Amino acid sequence: VVITGAATIRDARAGDITLAENDRFAKDLESCEAAAILVPSDFQPERIPRVVVHSVHQAFAKIVARFRPQRVPPAIGVSPAAHISPTAKIGPGANIYPAAVIGDEVDIGAKVTVHPGVCIMAGCTIGEETILFPNVVLYENTKLGRRSIIHAGAVIGAYGFGYDTVNGRHMRGAQLGNVEIGDDVEIGACTTIDRGTYGPTSIGDGAKIDNNVMIAHNCRIGKHNIICGHVALAGSCTTGDYVVMAGQVGVSDHVGIGQGATLGAKAGVMNDVPAGAVYVGIPATPVREQMIKQAALSKLPAMRKQLYALQRAVDRLVRQAEEAATKETV
Amino acid sequence: VVITGAATIRDARAGDITLAENDRFAKDLESCEAAAILVPSDFQPERIPRVVVHSVHQAFAKIVARFRPQRVPPAIGVSPAAHISPTAKIGPGANIYPAAVIGDEVDIGAKVTVHPGVCIMAGCTIGEETILFPNVVLYENTKLGRRSIIHAGAVIGAYGFGYDTVNGRHMRGAQLGNVEIGDDVEIGACTTIDRGTYGPTSIGDGAKIDNNVMIAHNCRIGKHNIICGHVALAGSCTTGDYVVMAGQVGVSDHVGIGQGATLGAKAGVMNDVPAGAVYVGIPATPVREQMIKQAALSKLPAMRKQLYALQRAVDRLVRQAEEAATKETV
Amino acid sequence: VVITGAATIRDARAGDITLAENDRFAKDLESCEAAAILVPSDFQPERIPRVVVHSVHQAFAKIVARFRPQRVPPAIGVSPAAHISPTAKIGPGANIYPAAVIGDEVDIGAKVTVHPGVCIMAGCTIGEETILFPNVVLYENTKLGRRSIIHAGAVIGAYGFGYDTVNGRHMRGAQLGNVEIGDDVEIGACTTIDRGTYGPTSIGDGAKIDNNVMIAHNCRIGKHNIICGHVALAGSCTTGDYVVMAGQVGVSDHVGIGQGATLGAKAGVMNDVPAGAVYVGIPATPVREQMIKQAALSKLPAMRKQLYALQRAVDRLVRQAEEAATKETV
Repeated sequence: VVITGAATIRDARAGDITLAENDRFAKDLESCEAAAILVPSDFQPERIPRVVVHSVHQAFAKIVARFRPQRVPPAIGVSPAAHISPTAKIGPGANIYPAAVIGDEVDIGAKVTVHPGVCIMAGCTIGEETILFPNVVLYENTKLGRRSIIHAGAVIGAYGFGYDTVNGRHMRGAQLGNVEIGDDVEIGACTTIDRGTYGPTSIGDGAKIDNNVMIAHNCRIGKHNIICGHVALAGSCTTGDYVVMAGQVGVSDHVGIGQGATLGAKAGVMNDVPAGAVYVGIPATPVREQMIKQAALSKLPAMRKQLYALQRAVDRLVRQAEEAATKETV
Repeated sequence: VVITGAATIRDARAGDITLAENDRFAKDLESCEAAAILVPSDFQPERIPRVVVHSVHQAFAKIVARFRPQRVPPAIGVSPAAHISPTAKIGPGANIYPAAVIGDEVDIGAKVTVHPGVCIMAGCTIGEETILFPNVVLYENTKLGRRSIIHAGAVIGAYGFGYDTVNGRHMRGAQLGNVEIGDDVEIGACTTIDRGTYGPTSIGDGAKIDNNVMIAHNCRIGKHNIICGHVALAGSCTTGDYVVMAGQVGVSDHVGIGQGATLGAKAGVMNDVPAGAVYVGIPATPVREQMIKQAALSKLPAMRKQLYALQRAVDRLVRQAEEAATKETV
Repeated sequence: VVITGAATIRDARAGDITLAENDRFAKDLESCEAAAILVPSDFQPERIPRVVVHSVHQAFAKIVARFRPQRVPPAIGVSPAAHISPTAKIGPGANIYPAAVIGDEVDIGAKVTVHPGVCIMAGCTIGEETILFPNVVLYENTKLGRRSIIHAGAVIGAYGFGYDTVNGRHMRGAQLGNVEIGDDVEIGACTTIDRGTYGPTSIGDGAKIDNNVMIAHNCRIGKHNIICGHVALAGSCTTGDYVVMAGQVGVSDHVGIGQGATLGAKAGVMNDVPAGAVYVGIPATPVREQMIKQAALSKLPAMRKQLYALQRAVDRLVRQAEEAATKETV
């Protein structure tokens, strides 16, 4: 068998090698023209020549990278077209691309990559091997850990959204804090994380945050959280480690989410969530409660009909009882 | 009649010409000072001098453009203040503005406009007459079709949000794919579209996508979709042609939306939607089901009262029946 | 007492001064190591040396600023590394940072700050003392008032999302309007505000808009509105003064929100909201209605049980009545 390319089942053409994680893909394979397939030991489709591997995804990634090698940005060192304050420190092996702007007293660790258009304001520190994709903005005094990745257009450290209304004017609160982000964190494109009022807004080691997320001032996100797209956390929320939030979740201010809790897509969380709990719905409740509610809700039209029929039956019974009473009296 | 300006009804002052699409604007016109009005043939308001036209919007746009000509960015060619890799190809008639950054082996078609601060990473190709507004970011190997428009701050091709958790660490999946966008596509400001895992995330010809939308890795968007603001699509969703999604819709991963289906604002879609269907609500159901549910829901407080009254009536009937039975026995 | 730092209660260590707004913090104080505390006159915790002040936040901000002075960007004037059209006017005392791009006929007021990577397209005017944080984009003819703050990555004036479908193609409407923003407005990071079709989309004086918000074409936002994160307003909405929208609210097109109205988090507003009203829920209704609905909803499973029991009781009564009738007849 000659393999000339690699693609997933829906894209694979003649000559391609493809992959299947389990037997749920059996049906899709029927119309697939792939020349060969990577499979785990417990799924052995018949028609296609197969290669049994321990991890289909790890193996397939290596094959894809052979056919379409991942582009690695060239090591260019510090571009003369970057704008760098004379008081900034740049670690060894760092790459700073054109049109990046680095402010006063910034400290950039070894092997950090700063892509074009990134703006790092004064006093920031960036741990080694961290990557800032194009047009990321770090406001002053932001601290980033090591091996973290900040995707394009993310904004870290803008002012917190807190106001006191005095004589009909909304007066902005103090903006004296910053944002502190741990090691091995990933932050998605166009995600925004606001600075704390007096101290840090913080993101724990290993947390992964998707695109277009907003995390407000003074939040404290635990380690290894998974926060999906379009989640919005209001001010001063806290989360334990290993919390998972699905897409478009919203959390009210000052709410605490316990370790290992899961919030379902679009959940609207108004009160603390205990560790390990699974909450869904608006307002968010334990998933079991919500399922009972939803089941009852889907019976609601039937309940209305039943209630109407019962009403008629009872009205008839009441009438009959009255007639009987009248007869007796007569 | 002398016309000195053009404005919509709510803004029109003396001397302005205005427009009305139909008789629903009759009431607003009463207090309008406009000197004249564009109307269709089936709406003829009395008080104001009128010009009857076939398409009020097309005609009005021409008049407005006469008073306030749309600014056309001057043809500047390739700015010496742009940062362009020597291996990039720039087509004839392209405009590349200052502070734009164009990476290795990028292929830019004829008459393409690249505004300031745009970053085009290595290996991208851009079809002719496409416009990239300021600070757009295209990650490596992104392919854009012809006559498309990408608005400011949009990020195309960032890493997909997929992780395997191994020994308590979230390990990022392969990022070997890219994003491919068709002809005549428009993508809104601060919208993010992530690359595929092994192959493309794709957007079909003629699709229009609003601001602050997120489209996750491996999604396949059909032709001529309309996707409104703050929509979030999780990984590997597919849509047919002419799908419409209203604002803040969320779609779970691996969901398929059939051709011509419509998803109402804030819908939370967890399962496939058939072609032509209109789904609304959280979780999303056919609109008729949802209307019945909502109607029943609004009757719920009344149902509670009715149920309570029925309970009392039945209790009384049961008591009467027991008394009657007792009497008989006696 | 020697004070060596300042931090909020949850962060305060030995030597720090902290603050408490009221007696709700009494419990948190028990385990706090702070050396002293700022309190109002009506809360006098015993254990910690206290300083009674009129406004704890104003006083604390001054102390924090003493220990960690807020960084003020140095006055650099007009950077030679900024790209400025010869037809742009720059007011006295303005600071224009490297990699900022300023288009033709732009008018920048006195003491305006334009951070790196900002792109100001042709014909914009910016009132005095306004601050544009890094990578903000203003499309052509945008007007900003005085003392306003636009946070990083915000995009003002992109095309409105309005299409006519002609022969299966979505044709973009006119884009002849602009965006006009008042004095003392704040706009959050990655927020997008689209231009009007023929005239302005406008934001009133003193309005405060959070991150990742979208305001569509032709909207008219009143003065002193508070619009929280991830709110999405569709086209041609209007709001009175002092409207408050909590996080993730969505408003349908052409809806009017009355002065002083409040929209709860995640509300989905499909119809006009009267002045002063508080609306919540999807679809949004007055908060009282929603509370009654939610209360009834939480009783729904119990109602189902009650209905079932009633049905059995009524069935029994009907059977008994039939038996009695049969007996009588016999």
